[in-house]
Amino acid sequence: MNASEFRKRGKEMVDYVANYLEGIEGRQVYPDVEPGYLRPLLPAAAPQEPDTFEDIINDIEKIIMPGVTHWHSPYFFAYFPTASSYPAMLADMLCGAIGCIGFSWAASPACTELETVMMDWLGKMLELPEAFLAGKAGEGGGVIQGSASEATLMALLAARTKVIHRLQAESPELTQAAIVEKLVAYSSDQVVATLGTTTCCSFDNLLEVGPICNKEGLWLHIDAAYAGSAFICPEFRHLLNGVEFADSFNFNPHKWLLVNFDCSAMWVKKRADLTGAFRLDPTYLKHSHQDSGFITDYRHWQIPLGRRFRSLKMWFVFRMYGVKGLQAYIRKHVQLSHEFESLVRQDPRFEICAEVTLGLVCFRLKGSNKVNEALLQRINSAKKIHLVPCHLRDKFVLRFAICSRTVESAHVQVAWEHIKEMAADVLQAERK
Amino acid sequence: MNASEFRKRGKEMVDYVANYLEGIEGRQVYPDVEPGYLRPLLPAAAPQEPDTFEDIINDIEKIIMPGVTHWHSPYFFAYFPTASSYPAMLADMLCGAIGCIGFSWAASPACTELETVMMDWLGKMLELPEAFLAGKAGEGGGVIQGSASEATLMALLAARTKVIHRLQAESPELTQAAIVEKLVAYSSDQVVATLGTTTCCSFDNLLEVGPICNKEGLWLHIDAAYAGSAFICPEFRHLLNGVEFADSFNFNPHKWLLVNFDCSAMWVKKRADLTGAFRLDPTYLKHSHQDSGFITDYRHWQIPLGRRFRSLKMWFVFRMYGVKGLQAYIRKHVQLSHEFESLVRQDPRFEICAEVTLGLVCFRLKGSNKVNEALLQRINSAKKIHLVPCHLRDKFVLRFAICSRTVESAHVQVAWEHIKEMAADVLQAERK
Repeated sequence: MNASEFRKRGKEMVDYVANYLEGIEGRQVYPDVEPGYLRPLLPAAAPQEPDTFEDIINDIEKIIMPGVTHWHSPYFFAYFPTASSYPAMLADMLCGAIGCIGFSWAASPACTELETVMMDWLGKMLELPEAFLAGKAGEGGGVIQGSASEATLMALLAARTKVIHRLQAESPELTQAAIVEKLVAYSSDQVVATLGTTTCCSFDNLLEVGPICNKEGLWLHIDAAYAGSAFICPEFRHLLNGVEFADSFNFNPHKWLLVNFDCSAMWVKKRADLTGAFRLDPTYLKHSHQDSGFITDYRHWQIPLGRRFRSLKMWFVFRMYGVKGLQAYIRKHVQLSHEFESLVRQDPRFEICAEVTLGLVCFRLKGSNKVNEALLQRINSAKKIHLVPCHLRDKFVLRFAICSRTVESAHVQVAWEHIKEMAADVLQAERK
Repeated sequence: MNASEFRKRGKEMVDYVANYLEGIEGRQVYPDVEPGYLRPLLPAAAPQEPDTFEDIINDIEKIIMPGVTHWHSPYFFAYFPTASSYPAMLADMLCGAIGCIGFSWAASPACTELETVMMDWLGKMLELPEAFLAGKAGEGGGVIQGSASEATLMALLAARTKVIHRLQAESPELTQAAIVEKLVAYSSDQVVATLGTTTCCSFDNLLEVGPICNKEGLWLHIDAAYAGSAFICPEFRHLLNGVEFADSFNFNPHKWLLVNFDCSAMWVKKRADLTGAFRLDPTYLKHSHQDSGFITDYRHWQIPLGRRFRSLKMWFVFRMYGVKGLQAYIRKHVQLSHEFESLVRQDPRFEICAEVTLGLVCFRLKGSNKVNEALLQRINSAKKIHLVPCHLRDKFVLRFAICSRTVESAHVQVAWEHIKEMAADVLQAERK
């Protein structure tokens, strides 16, 4: 395929994408297929000769779409949102075309520098303490990781290296193995210090845990994977109070800030803590600027060597929505979750199981776990909406997460009417 | 931005991308900017109100492009190739639109199932032993990782868990800490067992190392990050002989098989070794099929929880090139590297420093490291082509890697003429 063929096919794909997203409400949110559905639909091996583009585009509706769970349907209320917006998709097209691998400053200066500045922009939106920002010559700064898991792993490894260095400086006779054996990582029952857990969006009290960590010389990593996006709104920023005690902080704009996956934002107060743990300097990655003062080589900040030009997505989204547009988006989702909460509270058969703070409502039928499991199964078998459950203190609970960019009050109302209908069926079946 | 605006802007972006790649030869391959160039060109914080799309698209040429190293220029011969093709870019557009997060089968069945089948297709292209394929009910199978580093880390963690389980079964009195203290990971001076090192594309002898590993019960992981793509050609397949002794094998289609980053292909003979090490089963990720026989939940196969629909890129590329088209692509690159090699060999001032097997030529001026450092600096300062160096047994060596999808014999000839000119200047300066 050459450039002129790409001009044609690319525009057809733009239309396919626009059609898909415009019409997504009309697709069944959860697919009908059974495990193993796809293999018989494909040849056993790759073709020797090229297939045509028409064959492929036709196969999307025939083979792929029947097996897709439509995460961006306004009837998808499962897990947590995964971000999707047109500006981010446009940026991803550009990212693919530039196709640089930004492991060092020299490998593509724009890739590294835009990331540093975008992480500062985002840090300022969240009113992060100055120490987390790179600025022109700060000791801190931000990096885009692939996922919150990677950010947590990086924080853990950096903390481990830092404490080993400190203890070896204090007691040179200690071997690394002897130190590692004594190391302890503290975590809550949901993980590290967490703002907005996956189960029920609960919050750890940073103002209690933070000073203890600082006093004891413990590395404090805070994970706000889902909730972090909300902190760009002044009315939710208080949930982040105490971040000033942290060594590292992470949240996922790819969940709730309209920047398509992957884009997990991580900041550290001392970049040397990360780069000290992961320095990798083979000759073929050295460049003339690397020892000349203030330079960022992001390969030292992460596990993989390779990295895409992901900050383009942030740049496009921040500029095309503006901070006010992003705040309005968060507020709309929070308002919709409260709307659902109040519908649930008006029905005496149901109960709300956790405080509704952001876009997640945990609810259940008053009664046994069994009846709630039956309710969820009935809902997900009907496939009109899609939910997933969680366990809260041994109770089986349904999670209603506001997910889609295009979800409106009308969809929430439809979903609730449907849930009530399913509940009536379940309760009637139980009485029999 | 709504769907109709995206139709318009998306098509403009398709044209921008096509123009960029069509005209890339006319851009200077390495940028002129100095560290810190970008920050003064941007506002200190994100805008409160939205910017227009026109503003942003204009800023790409004004702010971004001046700082881009053009990896897809036919004058880029640095590092190793990073894959780029139009079919992969089309697939990425679709991937962004579907925007599912395929951590479990239920999260999007098509995402999981296409990946399993595409990894089988690719495994068959490489003539991997049957044990590495998933088939309908195999014990092995493939997974797309983000990078070879992640694949290596996964292999290491799986090996560690496996040996801990084995030793604890043999000697129940041993604590996990006592076992971990004794574990040893063997590696070559370039890493795990490697086919095609970054430095000089050398190959470990798997037929020697493999049987020893099997006899001693050691986990053997083979990394062929760059070279792996070449094994789809029968004439290079012998380089992979011995893979039958491995427990896990990995290479990067995102380097040399026209599938844009990220797409690192990893196979294991026993999927239970991976999933046993990483099982993660909170209630909100459970689904009705997960315990019903043969199902793949890829979150157990990797470090991050989230994952994109990356197999679409493989599907588009494999079908639109066909196996023969992919083989022809590999062969063209290898032929160009041999063409460059023979040009170097014809000039008695130069020497070839390592056997040229695939697309990399390691060469240098006969003489001191200093003169070769001066040559590289002169080449990279002229910015007509771009190279990086390596060290081979204390010798400073220049690497000439065939990288771009569009590089032709004419570019290689131009590059060589240019290198000779720079060499003449350097040698003349030395004589003075």
